[in-house]
Amino acid sequence: MKEYCFGIDVGGTTIKIGFFKNNGEVLDKWEITTRTENFGENILADICEALESKLVKEGISLDEIEGIGIGLPGPVLADGTVLQCVNLGWGTFNVEQKLSEMFHGIKVKAGNDANVAALGEAWKGGGKGYDDIVMITLGTGVGGGVIINGKILTGYNGGAGEIGHMHMQDGEEEQCNCGRHGCLEQYASATGVVRLAKRYMAAHSDEKLNEFGENITAKDVFDLAKEGNEGAITITKQMGNYLGKAMSHIAATVNPQAFIIGGGVSKAGSYLIDVVKDTYRETCFSACGDAAVHLAELGNDAGMFGSAALIIK
Amino acid sequence: MKEYCFGIDVGGTTIKIGFFKNNGEVLDKWEITTRTENFGENILADICEALESKLVKEGISLDEIEGIGIGLPGPVLADGTVLQCVNLGWGTFNVEQKLSEMFHGIKVKAGNDANVAALGEAWKGGGKGYDDIVMITLGTGVGGGVIINGKILTGYNGGAGEIGHMHMQDGEEEQCNCGRHGCLEQYASATGVVRLAKRYMAAHSDEKLNEFGENITAKDVFDLAKEGNEGAITITKQMGNYLGKAMSHIAATVNPQAFIIGGGVSKAGSYLIDVVKDTYRETCFSACGDAAVHLAELGNDAGMFGSAALIIK
Repeated sequence: MKEYCFGIDVGGTTIKIGFFKNNGEVLDKWEITTRTENFGENILADICEALESKLVKEGISLDEIEGIGIGLPGPVLADGTVLQCVNLGWGTFNVEQKLSEMFHGIKVKAGNDANVAALGEAWKGGGKGYDDIVMITLGTGVGGGVIINGKILTGYNGGAGEIGHMHMQDGEEEQCNCGRHGCLEQYASATGVVRLAKRYMAAHSDEKLNEFGENITAKDVFDLAKEGNEGAITITKQMGNYLGKAMSHIAATVNPQAFIIGGGVSKAGSYLIDVVKDTYRETCFSACGDAAVHLAELGNDAGMFGSAALIIK
Repeated sequence: MKEYCFGIDVGGTTIKIGFFKNNGEVLDKWEITTRTENFGENILADICEALESKLVKEGISLDEIEGIGIGLPGPVLADGTVLQCVNLGWGTFNVEQKLSEMFHGIKVKAGNDANVAALGEAWKGGGKGYDDIVMITLGTGVGGGVIINGKILTGYNGGAGEIGHMHMQDGEEEQCNCGRHGCLEQYASATGVVRLAKRYMAAHSDEKLNEFGENITAKDVFDLAKEGNEGAITITKQMGNYLGKAMSHIAATVNPQAFIIGGGVSKAGSYLIDVVKDTYRETCFSACGDAAVHLAELGNDAGMFGSAALIIK
């Protein structure tokens, strides 16, 4: 009987591997290094070796494995084709076929890391109990994942949920990493909040903010805002305004039951959520106004859970 | 054998009924009046009578009818509950159950009119051949429908595809019909284009535009723009700019293969499409840039086709 599966989250520096029972219980989790040299040619082989060792150690046969779910840092089409995982050095190929061929023909399902993290949160995290959620990950960049009826919405080119690159501001002079100007990521990511803070500091004299100077972080801004610092509150509201409006755009398109906010920036917690909610409720179509907004709960394990969910759910 | 179905599009003044073979062929189509008095209590009975007469006239038995698809002007949940069809005078009830009970227990599937029109265009119109489309209907208001894997995306409260109420402009002083300020509908509907034109005329002296004065229509604006009138071109670009940006928001969320633009305003044709495409390509996430943009093809029949598709497809 097929009782187990693997959930794997491949990042640019480490690969997280989870060994699951098919009821969703995590039996073990560990990390290996992502070897990106030579166009990442060792990555899949390293994964196979890790899985193989695990099975030997546990005395579990291949017949007992339902499959392998894998989350990857790049667009993944519905058929398992990765278009380009820049951080891994990979080009375009069908990763589901390839990994399956390399690992005894076992079923493999692949997804984009942000989408897979969303699926993880929908399954076991902040989105538990909801069928339709949108997850927004506020980290160095802004990622997103759309879950409809418990499944990832991939989009035609794997671009669904790429809300970090939603155009939020005309006339922005600085360029986003994607090459455009005025993307959500430029205001709502950790680096985005720092940009907003520096702009504020250049235009206003705020003693507390200025103490941090060039080295100010998003966390500093939120901490000061919580203490009641006016400048920091203004910056937080600017950020929340961009994010809340982006959420209202998303809601007018897919009308989710809940938004789940994760990533490092979300550590600002309920304070940030409240600011974001204000703009969301003010700008969203009324029928979408009762969408819940929760913090993510699985942290860095979301992708590992979501990858397992690709197989189990 | 079940060979036939009905596709019904219920509007505030008329009800369009299509009699289909299950291969998609339209055998007949006709209209009846929508009797909205007494909270629209006659509407379903009138429909039943029309269908009954048709079956008698054609000598077709109930056993040969696969089902009835019905599009309605208001939110419809996945289980067939209408939340409120203001234009019909209806409150909240399960229209699928009710109509089925009234018509010999035959299967009924209901959908929101804009969503159903989108399904119709995806099946037999401008979106034929695509699985994932977003339809945008530019009429008196702006409606939308999202089709994923050939199926309507309803959203949690039936609010998916309500893109007419996507917040596009901060600081808008006039109120949208929905009660908010700055919705897409305020700039991209027929009345929205007129608003933009009046604002332009108030701020600029343009002989050609001024000839139309208070009675200017969206069509007048587009006709003048096609003739090269500078003011009309500016207004058209403003409108196209709002719509193109809204499309880029939609794309960052669901990444469709194609956008289908319909409704009275879309009669401006390829000229308008080109203007909209320019903004879309400039603001969308690059992976979404190759989405096709087509004009709708079914006109007022889109809802009737889409309703039939609820049953057949």
